[in-house]
Amino acid sequence: MIVVKIGGSAGVDLDAVCDDAARLVREGRRLVIVHGGSDATNTLGERLGCPPRFITSPSGHTSRRTDRETLGIFQMACRGVMNQKIVERLQARAVNAVGLSGMDGRLWEGTRKAAVRSVEGGRVVIVRDDYTGTVERVNVGLLRTLIDAGFIPVVSPPAISTDHEPINVDADRAAAQTAAALGAEELLLLSNVPGLLQRFPDESSLVPHVSRAAIDDAVEWAQGRMKKKVLGAGEALCGGVGRVVIGDARARDPISLALAGAGTVFQ
Amino acid sequence: MIVVKIGGSAGVDLDAVCDDAARLVREGRRLVIVHGGSDATNTLGERLGCPPRFITSPSGHTSRRTDRETLGIFQMACRGVMNQKIVERLQARAVNAVGLSGMDGRLWEGTRKAAVRSVEGGRVVIVRDDYTGTVERVNVGLLRTLIDAGFIPVVSPPAISTDHEPINVDADRAAAQTAAALGAEELLLLSNVPGLLQRFPDESSLVPHVSRAAIDDAVEWAQGRMKKKVLGAGEALCGGVGRVVIGDARARDPISLALAGAGTVFQ
Repeated sequence: MIVVKIGGSAGVDLDAVCDDAARLVREGRRLVIVHGGSDATNTLGERLGCPPRFITSPSGHTSRRTDRETLGIFQMACRGVMNQKIVERLQARAVNAVGLSGMDGRLWEGTRKAAVRSVEGGRVVIVRDDYTGTVERVNVGLLRTLIDAGFIPVVSPPAISTDHEPINVDADRAAAQTAAALGAEELLLLSNVPGLLQRFPDESSLVPHVSRAAIDDAVEWAQGRMKKKVLGAGEALCGGVGRVVIGDARARDPISLALAGAGTVFQ
Repeated sequence: MIVVKIGGSAGVDLDAVCDDAARLVREGRRLVIVHGGSDATNTLGERLGCPPRFITSPSGHTSRRTDRETLGIFQMACRGVMNQKIVERLQARAVNAVGLSGMDGRLWEGTRKAAVRSVEGGRVVIVRDDYTGTVERVNVGLLRTLIDAGFIPVVSPPAISTDHEPINVDADRAAAQTAAALGAEELLLLSNVPGLLQRFPDESSLVPHVSRAAIDDAVEWAQGRMKKKVLGAGEALCGGVGRVVIGDARARDPISLALAGAGTVFQ
């Protein structure tokens, strides 16, 4: 089993990802696809007069400010835009894809953060109407049912809170939890960079390998969104996944190349 | 097995529908929920500067003009708005719902209309970039897999064309095809009217019963959207469904009341 997380940023070649996925499925590999909708949420939010806002935590982590209106836009972007694009492309390549959110079958469960600490103008303020959280439990029953019946699941946020509300969760880390829960051999985190870069955005500074012992350090120095990917890589390895690769989805055969070790290998 | 189609128009009480669905599921009834996204598409289209447009065929049928941009809005409304609302409500009532589109698992397959005839200013013009069609084949494999595993499917358009494109299909008629393919005992078409009205919108003119022999006539005189519901009722009966009820989803226990024969019964 391979869990493939596909980023949605500019440059990611969804057709190349889906071509490669279809070839691997024909060869008998079992895949689960995970994706987010961050960039699509930004674009749609701008069009709807609700531009993206972000929260910086006291420890320096950045996350999307997700009030109920933004949550609705996030759901449209994830479920109505990105998921449909991927399912359409896979079906056109004879892959019997099924799109799911983390709410379906309570696939991704987590606690909604009751209070989010946000640094604003040098002061820490408490935000109480945010719909965010982290996946704490993966109910793999639905995934196993579909996989055993020959379907290819394509999963995106939101997750579902213990109070049954949709919550915005990081898709990289959700993919990591999913890979661990499924006992996947590999987790591939594919986006628009060649892998973890020592000096972002200098692509010649690619780090080819990160050992388990070095992951905590890498979480510290990784920049922006890469921080969550490295965190996810560590969580997946801790959960029993054999290998994690952060790889490039901007050109042909991105899944096969990552499986061959192109990018940053965590092992 | 009962297939319940829920309309999305003003007045429909989704909480009441989901309360009733949850009670029936607890009692061991097997349900499949179907919904559309017509009203949500209108609202979202207005907000995105792409107000709804409609096509009137030479025979007098009205349908949404669905160019690729409108198709995208339709997908956001169906998958990102309505489906998520229903799945959230069912999950909050301990019903293990799974949201699907007609593209997932090629559940609803149909031919995209290569050319749509539209009456404009008294003349018939041919529209070639429309993404519409009719469900011709229901691949029940995915539904049976989920139902057998204890999940409650919640299905919406789009369907998938034989060329693997998303297509806008009428959800009432798709629900009818689904009920027939599943060999359902009942199909309930619930919306914001008490049933088929002899003199729309006079609710005292409810028609309590339509026999098979009278359906073709009723398709002729039914007004607006009701025409498609009556057409669907006829198609479901032809396909072997035991009974079809067009009922009211504006108050408590809408599914139970329709099962008890409130509304217009087609048999």
